[in-house]
Amino acid sequence: MWQQTQLTLSAKPRGFHLVTDEIVNQLESMNNIRVGLLHLFIKHSSASLTLNENADPTVRSDMEAHFNHFVPEGAPYYQHTYEGADDMPAHIKASLLGSSVTIPITNGQLNIGIWQGIYLGEHRNHAGARQIIATMQGE
Amino acid sequence: MWQQTQLTLSAKPRGFHLVTDEIVNQLESMNNIRVGLLHLFIKHSSASLTLNENADPTVRSDMEAHFNHFVPEGAPYYQHTYEGADDMPAHIKASLLGSSVTIPITNGQLNIGIWQGIYLGEHRNHAGARQIIATMQGE
Amino acid sequence: MWQQTQLTLSAKPRGFHLVTDEIVNQLESMNNIRVGLLHLFIKHSSASLTLNENADPTVRSDMEAHFNHFVPEGAPYYQHTYEGADDMPAHIKASLLGSSVTIPITNGQLNIGIWQGIYLGEHRNHAGARQIIATMQGE
Repeated sequence: MWQQTQLTLSAKPRGFHLVTDEIVNQLESMNNIRVGLLHLFIKHSSASLTLNENADPTVRSDMEAHFNHFVPEGAPYYQHTYEGADDMPAHIKASLLGSSVTIPITNGQLNIGIWQGIYLGEHRNHAGARQIIATMQGE
Repeated sequence: MWQQTQLTLSAKPRGFHLVTDEIVNQLESMNNIRVGLLHLFIKHSSASLTLNENADPTVRSDMEAHFNHFVPEGAPYYQHTYEGADDMPAHIKASLLGSSVTIPITNGQLNIGIWQGIYLGEHRNHAGARQIIATMQGE
Repeated sequence: MWQQTQLTLSAKPRGFHLVTDEIVNQLESMNNIRVGLLHLFIKHSSASLTLNENADPTVRSDMEAHFNHFVPEGAPYYQHTYEGADDMPAHIKASLLGSSVTIPITNGQLNIGIWQGIYLGEHRNHAGARQIIATMQGE
């Protein structure tokens, strides 16, 4: 069984956002999969998907602070500057964190840890909605 | 053909550990797959899975040294501090390195380079055993 | 439907390289897949695969500059130095960026954003050709 859907994540401010529910609510047919995998792919090079802690919001704000510190705006070695000071750091963060996640499905649900959730890393200051290709397969 | 198993990796000290054998020894049915994929997913947000060099142990200790240097404990911008100084860096490392790896299977074996192995990144000082969901599919 | 092929990427200088066409041109049977996934795996621990912006070459050179700055050669904590000053940083970059990418296939083509492409991160100074295992599945 294969199912592929294009999902839209609503526009969000720069930072890390817990989007597990926003994604799962758009994937009702996951219920039909006993064993399988969900692949989520973001069709943008200035935002990212990753798994991390789903409970304390300061984990997300600390991650944003850390990535801003170690992938700085205005580094003297940047040449790609004409799309704004946030653009080149956004590209670097996108590759550090990754453009897709693959998650096991068991008995119709994501088989993740109780403290895990799906994060959208929004790395631009003024981005619009983000497009995700969700591919589910299993039996 | 789909097979999904929950594996346990024994508790390990903080650092990077070569776990190829510990994982493969728990996946005997891989022998039956001519062409396929193995997906390994760690159900924790303070440990990670990655592929790297399988020979010289100093690659693992140098990686630990590097990540400790560039994802420091006690950064002035951390707010998530109540779970210990090692916790917030562990979350950041988990997202930098990733919570899953996908590896091709060919003729019943992992089709990785002769110098490649699977690393567990254990980012907490005193973690317990770690749970992995191994999902194999193929024909 | 499963198909697995070993691809060769020609030897390239150190840096980030857009390799979408070099890969897709070796995967003609992708045309037969209506819905599926392409998994690309690099059989080396000193090079990486990632998705990023496919248009402006300075994005690639800025990424190289950034990774050289934050994963430096000659760090005082490196012990794995006998394979050259570029080797240990290459291993760290390989794990930061990742050894594989998984990309949705829709109607016989990669379903990526119009500004996205596949990058090879070549992290050694004088590497040879790089081997990729391409695994396609779908229906």
